[in-house]
Amino acid sequence: MPSQRPLPGRIQPAPEGFLDARQIEAVRKGRRGFLKRAFAAAGGAMAGAAAAQGAFKGESEILELPEHSRGLGQPVAARAYGLPSQFEKGLQRRESPGLTRVSAASVSFAPLQGMFGIITPSGLHFERHHQGWWDIDPARHRLMVMGMVKEARVYTMDDLMRLPSISRMHFIECGANTGMEWGNVAVPTVQYSHGMISCCEYTGVRLSTLLDHCGYDRKNGKFVLAEGADGSSMTRTIPMDRALDDVMVAYAMNGEMLRPENGYPLRLVVPGVQGVSWVKYLRRIEVGDEEWATKDEAVHYIDLMPDGRHRQYTSIQECKSVVTSPSGGQTLLDKGYYNVTGLAWSGRGKVKRVDVSFDGGRNWRTARLEGPVLSKCLTRFNIDWTWDGRPAVIQSRAIDDTGYVQPKINQLRAVRGTRSIYHNNAIQSWKVSETGEVGNVQVF
Amino acid sequence: MPSQRPLPGRIQPAPEGFLDARQIEAVRKGRRGFLKRAFAAAGGAMAGAAAAQGAFKGESEILELPEHSRGLGQPVAARAYGLPSQFEKGLQRRESPGLTRVSAASVSFAPLQGMFGIITPSGLHFERHHQGWWDIDPARHRLMVMGMVKEARVYTMDDLMRLPSISRMHFIECGANTGMEWGNVAVPTVQYSHGMISCCEYTGVRLSTLLDHCGYDRKNGKFVLAEGADGSSMTRTIPMDRALDDVMVAYAMNGEMLRPENGYPLRLVVPGVQGVSWVKYLRRIEVGDEEWATKDEAVHYIDLMPDGRHRQYTSIQECKSVVTSPSGGQTLLDKGYYNVTGLAWSGRGKVKRVDVSFDGGRNWRTARLEGPVLSKCLTRFNIDWTWDGRPAVIQSRAIDDTGYVQPKINQLRAVRGTRSIYHNNAIQSWKVSETGEVGNVQVF
Repeated sequence: MPSQRPLPGRIQPAPEGFLDARQIEAVRKGRRGFLKRAFAAAGGAMAGAAAAQGAFKGESEILELPEHSRGLGQPVAARAYGLPSQFEKGLQRRESPGLTRVSAASVSFAPLQGMFGIITPSGLHFERHHQGWWDIDPARHRLMVMGMVKEARVYTMDDLMRLPSISRMHFIECGANTGMEWGNVAVPTVQYSHGMISCCEYTGVRLSTLLDHCGYDRKNGKFVLAEGADGSSMTRTIPMDRALDDVMVAYAMNGEMLRPENGYPLRLVVPGVQGVSWVKYLRRIEVGDEEWATKDEAVHYIDLMPDGRHRQYTSIQECKSVVTSPSGGQTLLDKGYYNVTGLAWSGRGKVKRVDVSFDGGRNWRTARLEGPVLSKCLTRFNIDWTWDGRPAVIQSRAIDDTGYVQPKINQLRAVRGTRSIYHNNAIQSWKVSETGEVGNVQVF
Repeated sequence: MPSQRPLPGRIQPAPEGFLDARQIEAVRKGRRGFLKRAFAAAGGAMAGAAAAQGAFKGESEILELPEHSRGLGQPVAARAYGLPSQFEKGLQRRESPGLTRVSAASVSFAPLQGMFGIITPSGLHFERHHQGWWDIDPARHRLMVMGMVKEARVYTMDDLMRLPSISRMHFIECGANTGMEWGNVAVPTVQYSHGMISCCEYTGVRLSTLLDHCGYDRKNGKFVLAEGADGSSMTRTIPMDRALDDVMVAYAMNGEMLRPENGYPLRLVVPGVQGVSWVKYLRRIEVGDEEWATKDEAVHYIDLMPDGRHRQYTSIQECKSVVTSPSGGQTLLDKGYYNVTGLAWSGRGKVKRVDVSFDGGRNWRTARLEGPVLSKCLTRFNIDWTWDGRPAVIQSRAIDDTGYVQPKINQLRAVRGTRSIYHNNAIQSWKVSETGEVGNVQVF
């Protein structure tokens, strides 16, 4: 298994990661001439392919066809369940060493710097476990709905999968995402600064369907408690109006059953709300008339304020965005055009607009949003940029359809102080040096 | 590696696959009483979970907590790249034995019967190879754009990934999907009848961006040729108006780089058009003034008509749909409510409506469409059904936003005959027997 240490060299800078040392040298010396040579040798399809293969080897090999253009490749279903290319091994979720005492109660971050579009491949979905993950036998798993209901029920997976089903795309973000940036700690890459977010298509049953089925107390049932089956017995309170709105008891993610690390066979999906409420290994739903003040909402996952008090029951992930490429740890190989890309999201609805600045916030241009733009879902943005070789500071600023504008870090600190862990949705700044190196800086 | 033989028992019937023999027996004897017993033993969360685990073991074990509620689970990043649950091994893409002489030039089908939503997990994406698949080094791969252009160019992956990028969700369907149903051969499951379709989010560069960059001949450049780098040197003609519309040179799929089986590092995405035109391992684009009549469009991938002549250059995948659960090989365990679900799509635009019949087409009801409903993309539909225990024939009929209605098989045969292989978009029929077994039948 690859090292978990965040050595910048190990973190794949996309897209520059596709160039080997000789190519990087060729690029630095000026691509135009190099491309002309490559093409001059190409008189047609075969020679073209040959040039493609031989461009860096010298004339003698120019006309040699690569093996994949001559031989017979691997058969279908060589792997019953497919895997990424051997050349993509560098792109993986990584733990931040020392973040927690044991890796069973830790985090692995999604490699946003090398990801595309809005769908997170399930194999790269970020992880946050409180007592490790399990692969629970779905034939033995049950969900109990109890408390202030007419008839308490225990559901098998088969019961749940026979009920009316819905599919929705939503982002999930840990409340602690970008938490290190509250102080002056600038982690090196976007994987560690923003990698506790993922976005998937979920399929399951509306929680309201189960609450109706059990006849919940419409007069006094003001809250719902969700409890997980793992050793941490994660428990979270959810207001009834939210529970009846768009909360889902999900069994599937990205077209297949949930992954074990993400709560297989059952997890709660609470769109727009911090990940801790998306209870994994969901085994119990209780209806009650007041908040439960469980350990995970009264002591943990609270926001420490400047005056020493703390906020409880904060949950919505406010509008936020980040440029994923170029980003910390990557290098711009030469001047000229770049497609600058990133992600934007809001726990309150749709992303309305994303502006990008290349001079630390003095001037802003509006980015292109890729479709579909969905509520409480990631939105991919792209914007053209021609780098003139001088130092630059790249920032993105998202605005959602409520009109809320993503704040600067100092604006957020003025209200929240610097000792918080959770709910940092400040504008991120990436500094580009004259040599093309990109680093994480805080701009006020 | 698991057997490739399509033994019905090996094909996971979702969702019934989650029940073991004893549970199936319990269900057949009547779930209500069984659930009451399970709940009677549950006095609270812990006992509830205990009952969930012990329900089939007898009273003595009722209060024993499962290990995953007591112990410490696996750490984060236990797998740098995540995999499905051990209990999902039955759900995999499968080759149809004997379909072709060698598995390097064959097909593996996606297990639609156990899939959810519209996104196809990349690990379950169907495969169609003409000379096997390769894992090509992206640092050595090149794309040449030539022919009727002002300046021919050779692009590295880095060149392409620096150009303006777009992300789009589209389905890809092999023109031969459902081909066996032209005659009277009824393959046993939806995996083999409709499994040559998948749907992903693609990221890449508009082909029009490259054509503009090279200065294509706007007066005489009427067609584009796309050529792959694998041994089959797959070549397909694409009309210029389509090439300039929504065709994409894609390097990413579902948030990560393409998979080797799907053309890594570069493939053409031709929305709405049969899969063969989505040239994998794309190495060359040529602009010309007439169709090339290559082997893959003049001799293969042609539609044999009743009068013995054949149609060439057929490409659009017309409006089509199929119920994926319940479907062939599955079994309904008891009477009562079922969430009937399936997929619909159109190569010409968006799915406007899907109707479902449970009596072989005499009566139709409109299904619920899950969002987002996108152009040239899969659309998931769901509909409520209460099975009364009598024989039934389930069908779905899709209508797209051009007003086109998915035809019955006999309507299609009246025009196309019975000796075709490609472009069968007929209504699919699933017969439910009194014992609950579901099979593939042809209803005229």
